[in-house]
Amino acid sequence: MNLKNDLILRAARGEEIERYPVWLMRQAGRILPEYRAVRASLSGFKELVETPELAAEVTVQPVDILDVDAAIIFSDILVVPEAMGLPYEMIEKTGPYFQNVIRTEEDLKKVEYAFDIEDRLSYVFEAIKITNKELNGRVPLIGFAGAPWTILCYMVEGRGSKTFSESRKLLYTNPILAHELLNRITLVTIAYLKQQIKAGAHMVQIFDSWAGILGEKQYQDFGLKYIKKIVSEITEVPVTVFSKGAISSLDDICKLDCNTIGLDWNMNISNVRKIVGETKTLQGNLDPCALYASHSEVEKATISLMNSFSSQRHIVNLGHGVYPDIDPEKVKTFIKTVKNHEKQC
Amino acid sequence: MNLKNDLILRAARGEEIERYPVWLMRQAGRILPEYRAVRASLSGFKELVETPELAAEVTVQPVDILDVDAAIIFSDILVVPEAMGLPYEMIEKTGPYFQNVIRTEEDLKKVEYAFDIEDRLSYVFEAIKITNKELNGRVPLIGFAGAPWTILCYMVEGRGSKTFSESRKLLYTNPILAHELLNRITLVTIAYLKQQIKAGAHMVQIFDSWAGILGEKQYQDFGLKYIKKIVSEITEVPVTVFSKGAISSLDDICKLDCNTIGLDWNMNISNVRKIVGETKTLQGNLDPCALYASHSEVEKATISLMNSFSSQRHIVNLGHGVYPDIDPEKVKTFIKTVKNHEKQC
Repeated sequence: MNLKNDLILRAARGEEIERYPVWLMRQAGRILPEYRAVRASLSGFKELVETPELAAEVTVQPVDILDVDAAIIFSDILVVPEAMGLPYEMIEKTGPYFQNVIRTEEDLKKVEYAFDIEDRLSYVFEAIKITNKELNGRVPLIGFAGAPWTILCYMVEGRGSKTFSESRKLLYTNPILAHELLNRITLVTIAYLKQQIKAGAHMVQIFDSWAGILGEKQYQDFGLKYIKKIVSEITEVPVTVFSKGAISSLDDICKLDCNTIGLDWNMNISNVRKIVGETKTLQGNLDPCALYASHSEVEKATISLMNSFSSQRHIVNLGHGVYPDIDPEKVKTFIKTVKNHEKQC
Repeated sequence: MNLKNDLILRAARGEEIERYPVWLMRQAGRILPEYRAVRASLSGFKELVETPELAAEVTVQPVDILDVDAAIIFSDILVVPEAMGLPYEMIEKTGPYFQNVIRTEEDLKKVEYAFDIEDRLSYVFEAIKITNKELNGRVPLIGFAGAPWTILCYMVEGRGSKTFSESRKLLYTNPILAHELLNRITLVTIAYLKQQIKAGAHMVQIFDSWAGILGEKQYQDFGLKYIKKIVSEITEVPVTVFSKGAISSLDDICKLDCNTIGLDWNMNISNVRKIVGETKTLQGNLDPCALYASHSEVEKATISLMNSFSSQRHIVNLGHGVYPDIDPEKVKTFIKTVKNHEKQC
């Protein structure tokens, strides 16, 4: 199917664009009353993730309502550890919880990595197919997965954490086990992303949410090494890598063979542009809190962001997922401002 | 009283030292069974903070047991917002909780800043006096306070948070209110630190625990501006500034007129040394998780850290507070390794 709007794909590939494309991380979610209505009818978050028709419905909502230039499949990075044998619950107001965690060689035996991903995560691929049918070529659909380091964090810690000290402890006490686990996650993630692409994802993003808790050397060894493997295998569509908080590793991240680098709101776009030159597209990075300001301030901040671009290789986004209590009208102002902006590079 | 060991003061001032001084953030605390014994006899954390004899006792413990080169007064950065009219509870396993928060001009009226600090936080100053008596000049005593931005975070949010989005929201929606609140915190903090010094603190550290959630520009405006004011007022003793996570602001932090800059474990010592030259002492920054490794690995990591120093202006510490489940014997290995190391600069 031909895409009516392929702006984001062209931006990712460094091709000519008329204006900057724009979407938001977590655009399908709690900011939209329409999402909350779907969610309220269900037993929980996971039911939504696992029901392809509903996941597709909330994936399409921001395209209909907010007029973004891309959809991103509604899912969770934790479907991967679950597929590998570690089921999780999503506890309201608390976050994910895993009954079993991986801390020893004995635990590792529970971690599956040779299985039919198409069958085990069929609900994701089904949701991608339905979404594309409903989008009918209006915008591209982004697939995604967590980076191996971030997935390891949850598999070892078993829940969210400020420090992920159990996970980081493993890097010191049993690096071999950590590498074995990262290898397995990497294998599954490659298969998972390839299957998303086969199902219809037009580009994919790798989210390394906990990149920022590792120093440069450890992130090189336990983080980027595995992202590099994934990136080298995914050649079908443009790939975006978002290593949140990894400011001290930006030089290394910029060497990845991906199309686009996601920047959080603390990363300095001009500095990163100096490192990458014109070899990469940069995605981001308005502070999500900027959308709490008045409409005119949102407009000003968005224009100021775009004025800081010295290249056309940009995808406008926030520097993190949109916060759930942001007024959708502010998001619309953000998006309209990008769409009305005359690209100046 | 003459100090028998003033190594850390000399290191902070850039004077000649025989070896690197060493201490640990959170050295007085849950890693020590002796601390847990004191704590178990009490109703809660705050009783310990507010009982000078006991606060002094746990402050001295790591000097007796771990043989560190400095004591740091056992207290909490949140005694300042409490003194300003916002009482807090410390909820076990959850963290601090403030009944009242500051989000409007009306709320701000509750925030006191002109009061007798000596009277209102007398328990801290009393603890400092008792500690110095018990230390009897063995090592210097470090006083401390939270940086205004971090204190604002708690006063606005009312509790810990991953994103502190309520606090950051205020910077966009009502920057004037934010500045007024920061001004008040700054005034109280200056008085508080001066009183700690009067009571006997030999040096002071400013902890900006949430520095890392602000981008460069905002940290300049809402963070460093106020730290600068504090630093310019505290001329009696050496001052250390620890802006955790503020990697993108290191250039600006290095311009502060303080003696020592604390580095977290993700900050690259060699890069910061290049910025500061010999004008500043650097403190840190072993990853606290490195202490989970074997004794020989702890030793190796500690030596490797010191070998990365290209100056004598260093105070060895972790890059964050020691984690509560670290074996004190590992901490001893860390400290012994520093003490046995021949300074090579």
